[in-house]
Amino acid sequence: MEHTNKLAELFSRFPGIGQRQAKRFVFFLLSQDQGFVEDLARQMSNLKKTASTCGNCFRFFFGQQKEEKLCKICRDTKRENTLMIVSREIDLENIEKSGIFSGKYFVLGGTIPILDKPPFKKLRMNKLLEKVDKAGQAGELKEIIIAMDFNPEGENTTIIVKRELSALSEKYKFNISSLGKGLSLGTELEYSDPETIKNALQGRH
Amino acid sequence: MEHTNKLAELFSRFPGIGQRQAKRFVFFLLSQDQGFVEDLARQMSNLKKTASTCGNCFRFFFGQQKEEKLCKICRDTKRENTLMIVSREIDLENIEKSGIFSGKYFVLGGTIPILDKPPFKKLRMNKLLEKVDKAGQAGELKEIIIAMDFNPEGENTTIIVKRELSALSEKYKFNISSLGKGLSLGTELEYSDPETIKNALQGRH
Amino acid sequence: MEHTNKLAELFSRFPGIGQRQAKRFVFFLLSQDQGFVEDLARQMSNLKKTASTCGNCFRFFFGQQKEEKLCKICRDTKRENTLMIVSREIDLENIEKSGIFSGKYFVLGGTIPILDKPPFKKLRMNKLLEKVDKAGQAGELKEIIIAMDFNPEGENTTIIVKRELSALSEKYKFNISSLGKGLSLGTELEYSDPETIKNALQGRH
Amino acid sequence: MEHTNKLAELFSRFPGIGQRQAKRFVFFLLSQDQGFVEDLARQMSNLKKTASTCGNCFRFFFGQQKEEKLCKICRDTKRENTLMIVSREIDLENIEKSGIFSGKYFVLGGTIPILDKPPFKKLRMNKLLEKVDKAGQAGELKEIIIAMDFNPEGENTTIIVKRELSALSEKYKFNISSLGKGLSLGTELEYSDPETIKNALQGRH
Repeated sequence: MEHTNKLAELFSRFPGIGQRQAKRFVFFLLSQDQGFVEDLARQMSNLKKTASTCGNCFRFFFGQQKEEKLCKICRDTKRENTLMIVSREIDLENIEKSGIFSGKYFVLGGTIPILDKPPFKKLRMNKLLEKVDKAGQAGELKEIIIAMDFNPEGENTTIIVKRELSALSEKYKFNISSLGKGLSLGTELEYSDPETIKNALQGRH
Repeated sequence: MEHTNKLAELFSRFPGIGQRQAKRFVFFLLSQDQGFVEDLARQMSNLKKTASTCGNCFRFFFGQQKEEKLCKICRDTKRENTLMIVSREIDLENIEKSGIFSGKYFVLGGTIPILDKPPFKKLRMNKLLEKVDKAGQAGELKEIIIAMDFNPEGENTTIIVKRELSALSEKYKFNISSLGKGLSLGTELEYSDPETIKNALQGRH
Repeated sequence: MEHTNKLAELFSRFPGIGQRQAKRFVFFLLSQDQGFVEDLARQMSNLKKTASTCGNCFRFFFGQQKEEKLCKICRDTKRENTLMIVSREIDLENIEKSGIFSGKYFVLGGTIPILDKPPFKKLRMNKLLEKVDKAGQAGELKEIIIAMDFNPEGENTTIIVKRELSALSEKYKFNISSLGKGLSLGTELEYSDPETIKNALQGRH
Repeated sequence: MEHTNKLAELFSRFPGIGQRQAKRFVFFLLSQDQGFVEDLARQMSNLKKTASTCGNCFRFFFGQQKEEKLCKICRDTKRENTLMIVSREIDLENIEKSGIFSGKYFVLGGTIPILDKPPFKKLRMNKLLEKVDKAGQAGELKEIIIAMDFNPEGENTTIIVKRELSALSEKYKFNISSLGKGLSLGTELEYSDPETIKNALQGRH
C-alpha cells in the first residue's frame, strides 16, 4: 500500500480534496491506461517549465518566448488605462472571459482576513504601490477598480486596499472604485456570469 | 491558456471533479514548487509500472517480484474458503481494514446499472464464472458472499451475480449469500424510513 | 424578569431545549398575538384531559369514549399474535406509519442506561411481565420482537428485556427476537465502519 | 392523532423547532403530570396579560402597575444620557446582565437584510427618529451607540441607522458610534460574555 499512500498524500494537498477522495484518485489512475497517466504526468511536469509570471500584472502566462516579461494583456496597447485589482488569477480569467472589461489587471495574490494586521503576507501590496506610483507618474492611470468577492473577507480587502492607495490617489488624481453591490452577498467573482459582472462594473462606486 | 486547458481537461476526468475544480487544480499546481509537481508526476508515472493485477482476485498489488502472479491475500493459505465478491478495490480495502473477514475476495470491477443488459462491459463476470468453476471442481468453495453497496445499483448487481452463479452453486453445493440489512449503528427507530424498518424486521434474529 | 424566568424555566425542561432557547421561546410568545398564546395554552391544557392510556400497550390515545380502556390497535382482532416492544410511543408511531408490522405493541416507557441496576424506574417492566404471562397462558403469543434504537443504550435494553423474559419464553414456547442489523439504505461499503461490516456479515442471508 | 397534530403544529412555529421536535414536545407533555402542563398553560396565558411595552425603549416589562408606561430602566434617573440601539430585546438583556453599560436603550425590533429597501417593515425606525429628535431638543443626548451583531446583516443595519440619524446628529451635536470590532466576525450579542461586550464598548468608533 505504500505506493498508493504516498501518492494519495500528495493528492490530499489539492484544494478541496480530502483523504478519501485522494485515495479514489489513486484507484482511478490505476484503472486507466498507462497512456493517460503518462500524458497527465508529462503535462504536469511541463506546466511550470513553460509558465512565466507577468512582470506587470503577476498572472501566469504560457506559450511565448521565455524572454518576454509581459503577458498578452499587458502588452496590448489598445487596452484602456483602467486598472482592475483582483485577488486571484481565476477571477481575472472569468472577468476576461465575460468580455466586458477592456482595461488592465493586477493580481493581488489573495484576500485579507478580518482582523488581520499588516504586513499582509503573500499579498503583493508593495508591488501594487510601486506599480501604481509608476503608472501615476507616467500619467497613465484614470481609475482603479477593486474587484473582490462580495463576502466579509472581500469587503475587508477592498477597505484596506482603498486605504493603502488613498495617498497615491490624491497625488495622481485617479478615482478608486469598487464593484457595485449588484453583487449579492456571498457572490464569488470566479463563478459570476457575464451579466452579473457587467452590472457590478456599471454600478461601481 | 492552451496548456492549462489541456491539463484541466485531464483532471476533469477524475472521479467527482468538474471543470471548475479541474481548473483550480491547475492554478494550485502553478502556485506550488516545481519540486512538488515533479514528485507528483514521478509518483503517478511509477504507479502503474510497479502495480500488478492479482491473477486470482484482480486487485492491484505492489512491492513484490513482478513475476509473482498473486497478491498477498490470495497467497495466504490460512484464509478460509469463503469468497467475497466486491465491486471495487476500495471496498475490499475497507473490509480488510475492519479485520472481520478472513476469507478471500474477488473484485468484480464495478456494478450493474438498473436496466443494463448483458454482456456487462468492464465487469469480470466471465473471469468470475471461470474462477468459481475451478474452485468448485477443486472442492475449495464453502460459500460466496456478494458484498455490494446498499443502493439500487448494488441491489441489482447482487441479483444478477446470484443468477449467474446459480447453476454452479447447485453443481458444487456452495451457498450464496448477500450482506445483512437492517439498522446500522446510531439508527433511531423514530427517524427510520419504511425500507429500513422492513429490512430490520425481516432480518430479526 | 420574574415572569419570563419562571416560564423559561418550564420550557427548559422540554426535550432538547437549553436555557437560551427557552428564553427565546418566551420572547417569541411575547411577540405573538394573544390569540395564538391562548390557543396554545388551551390545547396544552386539553391534551391530557382528552388523552387516555391504553390498558394493554400503554400508548396514549384520543377521541374515543373515556370509558374505553383499549386503543384502536389493541382492539383490532385482526392484528397478529406477535408482540413488538418499543421504548417510546414515537417509535410505535413511526413503525405503524410504515405499514409493515401487523402485530401488537407494548410501550416500555424508556431505555435502560448502561450500568443501570434494577429496579428500572419509570419502565413498565413488571407490567410487561404480567402481560406476557397472561398472553402466554391464553396461548396467544407466537413471538416477541424487541425493537430498540441501535445504540449502546438500546442494545443494553434489548439484552435486559431478553433476560427478564427468558423464563416466560421457555414456559410458553414463544420466540424472542430483536431487529436485524446491517447495511441501511444508502450505505456504501467504502465508508462503512467495522461494526456495520461485522453486523452485515453476521446477518448475511 | 388529531389532538397531537394540532398542538404539534403550534409548537412547530416556535423559533428553531421543526415538525419532529414539535411532536416530541407533545409526547413530552403527555408524559408529564397534569400539574406541570396546567402550570405551563397558565404561565403562558398570563404572560402577555401582565406584559407591557415600554413607551420609551419598547422592551417588554412586567410586574408593575398596568398604568405605568415606562420600564424600570427608562424610569431610572441615574442612567446616563447615552442611548444604545439594539436589534432585539434579548441583546438588551444580555448587555444589561453584563453590568457594563449604564445608559439607556432602544429596541429597534430587528435587523435589515442586505439589499432591503426602505421602508423597513417591522422596524421602529420612525419611532427611533421621533425619540431622538425629542431627546435632542431636550438636550438630553450625548451619544448614540449602535450595537448590532457583527455579521453582514448587522453591519448593514448599522450603516443604515447611521445614515438615518445623521441629520439629527449634526443638528443636536451628538456622536454616533458603533461597537468596536473587538467583536470577531459572526459574534452575536445575545451570546457574548461580559468581557467581550466591555471590549466592544470601549473600542466603539
